[in-house]
This record gives sequence, C-alpha cells and structure tokens, in this order.
Amino acid sequence: MKYFDDFAIGDKIVTRARTVTEADVVNFASLTGDFHPLHVDAEYAKSTRFGERIAHGMLVLSVATGLWSPEHLLQWAFIAFYGMERVRFTAPVKLGDTLHVDFEVVEKQDKGNAAGVVNLRQSVMNQRGETVATCLVKLMIGKK
Amino acid sequence: MKYFDDFAIGDKIVTRARTVTEADVVNFASLTGDFHPLHVDAEYAKSTRFGERIAHGMLVLSVATGLWSPEHLLQWAFIAFYGMERVRFTAPVKLGDTLHVDFEVVEKQDKGNAAGVVNLRQSVMNQRGETVATCLVKLMIGKK
Amino acid sequence: MKYFDDFAIGDKIVTRARTVTEADVVNFASLTGDFHPLHVDAEYAKSTRFGERIAHGMLVLSVATGLWSPEHLLQWAFIAFYGMERVRFTAPVKLGDTLHVDFEVVEKQDKGNAAGVVNLRQSVMNQRGETVATCLVKLMIGKK
Amino acid sequence: MKYFDDFAIGDKIVTRARTVTEADVVNFASLTGDFHPLHVDAEYAKSTRFGERIAHGMLVLSVATGLWSPEHLLQWAFIAFYGMERVRFTAPVKLGDTLHVDFEVVEKQDKGNAAGVVNLRQSVMNQRGETVATCLVKLMIGKK
Amino acid sequence: MKYFDDFAIGDKIVTRARTVTEADVVNFASLTGDFHPLHVDAEYAKSTRFGERIAHGMLVLSVATGLWSPEHLLQWAFIAFYGMERVRFTAPVKLGDTLHVDFEVVEKQDKGNAAGVVNLRQSVMNQRGETVATCLVKLMIGKK
Amino acid sequence: MKYFDDFAIGDKIVTRARTVTEADVVNFASLTGDFHPLHVDAEYAKSTRFGERIAHGMLVLSVATGLWSPEHLLQWAFIAFYGMERVRFTAPVKLGDTLHVDFEVVEKQDKGNAAGVVNLRQSVMNQRGETVATCLVKLMIGKK
Repeated sequence: MKYFDDFAIGDKIVTRARTVTEADVVNFASLTGDFHPLHVDAEYAKSTRFGERIAHGMLVLSVATGLWSPEHLLQWAFIAFYGMERVRFTAPVKLGDTLHVDFEVVEKQDKGNAAGVVNLRQSVMNQRGETVATCLVKLMIGKK
Repeated sequence: MKYFDDFAIGDKIVTRARTVTEADVVNFASLTGDFHPLHVDAEYAKSTRFGERIAHGMLVLSVATGLWSPEHLLQWAFIAFYGMERVRFTAPVKLGDTLHVDFEVVEKQDKGNAAGVVNLRQSVMNQRGETVATCLVKLMIGKK
Repeated sequence: MKYFDDFAIGDKIVTRARTVTEADVVNFASLTGDFHPLHVDAEYAKSTRFGERIAHGMLVLSVATGLWSPEHLLQWAFIAFYGMERVRFTAPVKLGDTLHVDFEVVEKQDKGNAAGVVNLRQSVMNQRGETVATCLVKLMIGKK
Repeated sequence: MKYFDDFAIGDKIVTRARTVTEADVVNFASLTGDFHPLHVDAEYAKSTRFGERIAHGMLVLSVATGLWSPEHLLQWAFIAFYGMERVRFTAPVKLGDTLHVDFEVVEKQDKGNAAGVVNLRQSVMNQRGETVATCLVKLMIGKK
Repeated sequence: MKYFDDFAIGDKIVTRARTVTEADVVNFASLTGDFHPLHVDAEYAKSTRFGERIAHGMLVLSVATGLWSPEHLLQWAFIAFYGMERVRFTAPVKLGDTLHVDFEVVEKQDKGNAAGVVNLRQSVMNQRGETVATCLVKLMIGKK
Repeated sequence: MKYFDDFAIGDKIVTRARTVTEADVVNFASLTGDFHPLHVDAEYAKSTRFGERIAHGMLVLSVATGLWSPEHLLQWAFIAFYGMERVRFTAPVKLGDTLHVDFEVVEKQDKGNAAGVVNLRQSVMNQRGETVATCLVKLMIGKK
C-alpha cells in the first residue's frame, strides 16, 4: 500500500495503454446520451475539420481513469477523487487511436493527520506521442 | 441556432434529469475498467464512510454532458469542448440518485472573427437539492 | 425446417418469457438515445399517471422479437421481416415485469413460387396475464 | 412546449442523423437475444441476397425513436406512444449506413378535452437518400 | 423435451455460428474488467506472436454457451451446468472470426432416479475449420 | 514483473472482490445470447430449487478472470491462458452476491527454455465464505 507520505514531487507513472475503438465511442454515446453527430454520424463528421468521427472528450478522461485504476489506484491508500484543474482537450482522438497516461507528481497538500491531496499532472498520450488531453488530477490519499 | 453572440453573462439553463442506476454504475465500471470496490463491491462499500456503493466521479461528469447534449448543445453553434476548470466532487452520488445540471454563463472570451469561448458554471444537483459536482465548462462556440 | 406450406391458420405459438429489468431499460435508453424522463428519471416518473418508470414501447417490441427468434424463427425458412400492422401499446410495462409472446397464425399471403407472407397476431403478455402490446407481424417465409 | 393544437397537417420535421455501426448491431442482438445469422454471422451473411450482415428491422425503428426523442419529443406535450400502422422495411440497412428520419404530420385525431393523437408519416432514410423503413407513428399529445 | 434417456453415445450436434467482432471483445473486456493489452491495445498486440488483438479465451467459451443455449439447451430437460474438464485454448480467435460449436456425446453418467450427467465433447471451430477451443462439457439432465 | 521461476508451490493470492449485480447478469445474457429462464425470467426462477434468478456459471468464471487480471496477471510474464481442469460449479450465485478469488499455486510444469505452465487452484468465494466454483487454472508464464 502506498501512502501520502510515499509520494515525492517529480515521481513519474506510466500506465498501460488501450485502443479507443468504434465500440467504445458507441458505448459512451449510449451511456451518456451524448449522440453529437461529431461522434456518431460518419457522414457529418466527414464535413468537419476532423474529417472523421472523433471520441468524446469526456470518454478520453474516463478511459484515462480506468487506466490508473487497477494497477495504480488500488495499490494506493486512496480515499476520494478530489477534483481536477485546467482540463484541456489538446488534440482529437480518432477511432482506433491507442491511449495511455503519463503522470507526474507536481504538488502535495497536507490536510492534517489523516490524509493529504496529491496533485498529479496527467497527460493522455496517443500512439504517435501526441498529447490529446492534459489536466491536474487531485487525489485524496491516506497517511500511514 | 444559438451563436456566441447570443449568450449573455447571467443566462441560466436547467437541464432535464436522469436517475443514476446500479446498471449505469456497472456499465461505467465496464466501459472504463475502473472496478474500484467503492463502486462495485457492495460488501466493501458498507465499511466505508459512505456506507454503500457510490457512483464514479467521472460518471457524474459524463452523465452531465449527456444532459446538456441533445436539447442544448445541438441547438448551439458548438465547435469544440475546450476544457474545464476547478472540477470538484462535493457530495457522493448514491445508486438511485437523480441528477440534473444547472448552468450559468459567467464569462465570454472572444477569440477573433470565427468563434469565442463561453464559460458556464456547472452545478450537478441531486433530487434533494444538493450540489454533487461543480466546475467551469469552457465551450468553443461559433459566431454568426 | 418449417416452410410457408407448414403454417396453418389458427396455429398457436407460446414463447419462453423474460423479465424486463432496470438494466434492460437503461441499456435500451442507451442504445437508442431515448432518455425520456418517463423511462430514466425516477423522480419525474413518480409524478406521472404510472407512478414509476416504465419500459419504452419499442423495447417491449424488441424484447418480443428476441423471444421469437432463437427457438422459433431459426427453425423456420425465414427470409425477411416484412412489416407490422396495428401496433398498439395497451398497458404499461413496469421494471421487473416478465413478458412472453402469444402468437396466432391469422392469414397467409401466397407470393408465388418461392415464398409467402405469414401473418401472426402477436400479443405480448405480462406475468399477470395482461396484454401489454399487440400487433400483426408479417414474416416472409420460404416455400419447400 | 408544443401542444396538439400547434401541429398542422403538412408540417415536416427532419431529425439529425446517426451511423448504425457494427457495435450497434452487436449491442441490439445482445439486448434482445436476436442473434439471427443474418445480423451476426459474417460468413453466412455473404451467402444471402444481401451479401453482408444487415441491421435488425427493429433496431432501425428503435434508432429512429432515439432520433425523434431528445430535440423533438421532449419539446412536445407528449403523453404516450399510442401505436404504429403499416410498418414496412423497404431496404436493407448495412453496417455503417447513416440514418435520419423525415416526419410529416398527416392526420390529427381529437380525443376530447385533454389530448389528441397526432399521426406522423415516418420515413427512415439512409445517406444515399433511400427509404429503409416507413410507418405511421401515432403519438398522444396533450392540449393546451 | 429431450431427456437423459434420449441421449446416445456418438450423437452429434452442430450449432449455428456467430462472428466475434471488435465490439464483442470490447464488451467482454468491459463486463469482466479484463483489459489485458493482448485484447484491447492494438499497438501492443502488433508486437506479439499473434500480430493483432485476439479474443479472450473465456469469451470464446462464453460465446459457445450462448450458441448451445436457445435452440438446444432450452429443448433439453436441463437441470444444471455441472462442470467442464480439460479446457484447452488451441488456436487464437481473431476479431472477425466466425465460431460455431461441434458437440459429440461421449459419456453418460447415471445419477439415480431423477437425473444423469451427459458428457459432451465440445469443439469450438472457426470459419477456416480450425479448432480454437476444446473441452468436455458436463450437463445435468433430467430423466423422464 | 513476476516470472515462472518466481512462483512457488503453496503460494497464495487473494483478489479484490466484486458484486455480481442484476445488470451484470443481464449484460452477460446479452453478450452471449444465453437467456435461459433460470437467469432472466424472475417468475420461472421462483419455481426452481433456487427460488430466484442465479448467475450463469460462465459469468462466474468470467468475472473471476477479470479479478485476476489487472493487479495480478498484468504484473506477471503472462504468455497465454493454457486451459482449465475440473471446473465445478459448487453453489449458486445469486444476484447481489459478492465474489472474490482465492488462488493457490499447486504445480509447476517446466516447458523448456522460454516458459512454463503454472497451475493454480482457483476457488471463487462469496461473501458468506462459500465456494461457488472451483477449477485448476493453467497459465503459461515466461521465464527470466
């Protein structure tokens, strides 16, 4: 188990990767009800500056949380997902792109005896090394 | 069609609502691979300070985007989801809670001839009038 | 294999049954994008004449086709789903209701050498013996 | 809110569009249990007159209801989905086809003080301008 | 209804077939949380001896049970799925492969008055006639 | 990374747990097409010796593989899922039961220079400490 005390500024974490398929985009449109033509209308999407359907921004962030989760988060004394800062969608994610997350610990906020907030700079990267989304993730982590 | 020019500071929008069911939480765990016991292990969840399983924070934000989407976003000259600021998860969402979104236009950033960024303060509310998540949503909207 | 020639007016077929769960209603809202509050907003649904969420009419018809399919349709020289007549939704389907289909062959339309249209009166029934949907199903079936 | 009184014979409505993907066909087979080889067996489908897998007829109708739903139905004083007449599947829908709905108000049936039935001729169209399904949709709509 | 007494050593059963699509693999990863890169990371999969993503072994077995189920199992006096012996995954299943099951009754174990266990040798076959998985399936079947 | 060499007879592994919900059973029936009434017909299930719907045996095994996967399998030099022996379903899994896996290394089969097969006795356990399924899992694991 990794505690608040065990995180150091500058620590880096690289997650495994996952391909965002057409099925994932359909399933996310389904789950949320966000059937914007940019995501689910192949004809319309051809006419946009992207030239094809792209994944929902929130799907990209959601896939990212799934990539942290099992091997990393479950090994940490995780208490709560506190929030995010400066979320930016910096490049389109096309159907078939493969994403992973690069994390860096950039700040630690001590919140007293029991816990603190670890701030991780998250970069969601595609298979061409492009950053598709960035944000600061704030996780409440227990102390020893 | 509603353009950047048509948004005014102080405009308010209330979306329809949707119940976050056990099936939604299972489907979101599935989509993302985030099977944290807090969301999918009923026995473990009893032992936490929540006393029962709760929805993923990112599911709450994702459901929110689905509530904006069809009746609102599709009527706007929407170009891109630019980003979010100060995302905070302020209260747990329990299985069976019913959520809607309260929006208020709080800032407009002119980006030149073609478009601007409309900043909306988003409050995701449950059926008891509690705010479960807040953030600033930044949408790139076309000009007339 | 059962051919057009083998169907007789008055033949009756009873399918197996299936419970329409909350998960099915959520999954159908998802698949179609039809998140009408009557189906997915538990608070709103309390205020309607139904007093609770009900299944989508089209989900009821879709579940019905799934009940015909494997043990019946796959044994027939099925060519195409030709159409339906007089579709009526006659009673609400609540989450947890268990449905089956009663079929009766009511007309045969010979379409020449290769095939004909078998007309089946479909009654979708719940566990209390109430008819929740009725229609005439027209199936193109091959001849021997 | 649009009431029974506000609909006029001849009114036309065009919905947004949506691509019916392989994932949608798999998800619909799943939801209903209708795994007919015409929809889910690529080898078998090659041997049919269609030459490839096609979407379920009921999936086409279900997708259509999802296209009416958020931007149209939710703005109407909708009470109930009354029924359908003369449902016909007029052309196959292939995986990857993009569908939208053309509606025309063709009849209004006054049902007394509170509501009436609006009859809409529905044509489900693909991206090549072909009609893939037609029917008369009967919606119970409230009066002012 | 087919009873224990009605099965004879050497009886053969061939099921219908089904294509295992990318959507099925995504949906199975989702259901189970098994997002191993071999199944969901197209870039990684290129580097393996398979050269592309392959279906989960347990998905192959699960699809197989769905192929027995409606037309076969539902016609039998099925009591319980007793177990399996010697499960082997003998060839990779690629996305788009079409599978069916060949069954042969190889042993019957009488369990007294009410029921017996029928042992079926299951071969899951792809569209090129290759065996992708084998096992002995043990089903408890009622007597007349 | 844990290699074939690193496993010792008698090693024990306990996975995290997961609740098998109604949504999971519906989703598994959907994925496979196995809509046996024992799993999806609440009325029928009341009349069986179980008294209520139970999870599919293969869902139990599939959920189990998902529980091994991220924190365990991904840390191992996993090459292939070789097979299973003596799969037995020893107690029914009811909707809402919470399952985890107890593993014990019981045999190692050296297969030469590159890899070996690790045999793990798998016990799938519910929240009452009952064993619901057992089998021997055979995993091909790389050597250092």
